[in-house]
Amino acid sequence: MYNEKYPSRLLEEAVDAIAMLPGVGRRGALRLALHLLRQPAENVHHFTGAVNALRDEVQYCRECNMISDGEVCSICADRTRDHHTICVVESIRDVMSIENTGQYRGVYHVLGGIISPIAGIGPSDLAIPQLKQRLEALLAEGVPASGIEVILALSGDVEGETTSFYLYRQIESTGVKVSSLARGLGFGDDLEYADALTLGRSIQNRQIFKP
Amino acid sequence: MYNEKYPSRLLEEAVDAIAMLPGVGRRGALRLALHLLRQPAENVHHFTGAVNALRDEVQYCRECNMISDGEVCSICADRTRDHHTICVVESIRDVMSIENTGQYRGVYHVLGGIISPIAGIGPSDLAIPQLKQRLEALLAEGVPASGIEVILALSGDVEGETTSFYLYRQIESTGVKVSSLARGLGFGDDLEYADALTLGRSIQNRQIFKP
Repeated sequence: MYNEKYPSRLLEEAVDAIAMLPGVGRRGALRLALHLLRQPAENVHHFTGAVNALRDEVQYCRECNMISDGEVCSICADRTRDHHTICVVESIRDVMSIENTGQYRGVYHVLGGIISPIAGIGPSDLAIPQLKQRLEALLAEGVPASGIEVILALSGDVEGETTSFYLYRQIESTGVKVSSLARGLGFGDDLEYADALTLGRSIQNRQIFKP
Repeated sequence: MYNEKYPSRLLEEAVDAIAMLPGVGRRGALRLALHLLRQPAENVHHFTGAVNALRDEVQYCRECNMISDGEVCSICADRTRDHHTICVVESIRDVMSIENTGQYRGVYHVLGGIISPIAGIGPSDLAIPQLKQRLEALLAEGVPASGIEVILALSGDVEGETTSFYLYRQIESTGVKVSSLARGLGFGDDLEYADALTLGRSIQNRQIFKP
């Protein structure tokens, strides 16, 4: 514990506020506060203004729950994408990661979290009803169930698996195709250091070698 | 380089602003921005408000240049402290570090930086004239030069030594006592790993053993 006496109440309050950020201790918060104190006032106001604007003005796409500057995000508004393939993810960051691969041309559905009894997060806290509505809307438009795919792209831990299982049970009656991300060794991973579960899955899901 | 496409201009602007903080990369900035997005709006406003208040309302002590909530800082306002012993430091943080030791009962003088020709910081950019004025004011009050001590508590690198030497030349004509921090092995330091300069200084400045 780094127990400082602060020479100024304003400094102490700023350090307290900055130290609430994840991964920032009181020592780092003091360093950041003193850094901000040395910057021109307009730079500091630009920083706080950008943070306030993010929190106050950002919207969530009414289709997929992704953050967006308008009612519909740029991905859902893009008619060249496959709107019958819906990749279900936990968070905004997951969408950004998948977009970064450049390998996916479908759309997304951001749950906004994952089912976690320990953290008190149940299905009703997540955008699961909206996912069902999206599927029902597609079916009502006359899209055949076999032409719709839901990709469950949740993390591979217990909570992710639980959420995937729950979603599958909610969706299966609609008859749409449900898939999940391939699990296996990462590129460049060393067999020797792979955990048994991952390695086992890699063997089960082995693929025809295409040189 | 982590090259992201951002789903929202507001998010991108917030990430840009947060990534200007020292030690925060774009990836960390994105993590912080998404964290702030999940917080209640009043928490985010409290955070930005505390930062703005620090930058806009904080004052600098007219005596010692330390940050302060009023015209005179709490250390300079404390009449139980020795106002004839002035510890010259580079920054606010140095004052906090020395105060934390509980070993010092004098007052301070915060230069606000250190002479650095490479960074373009000369004596006139620092609170050096104010230090000379303080000493002249004390002498004008009738305090004998031999009763005043200036402790040069600057870092031990080339720039710190240059600044100490410059200050000494500025002050020596007043006849006040000028001292500098003891250099030597730290408590718990291993002789084997000490650099030669520090070890040499530790031998030169050896002290009578008092068990």
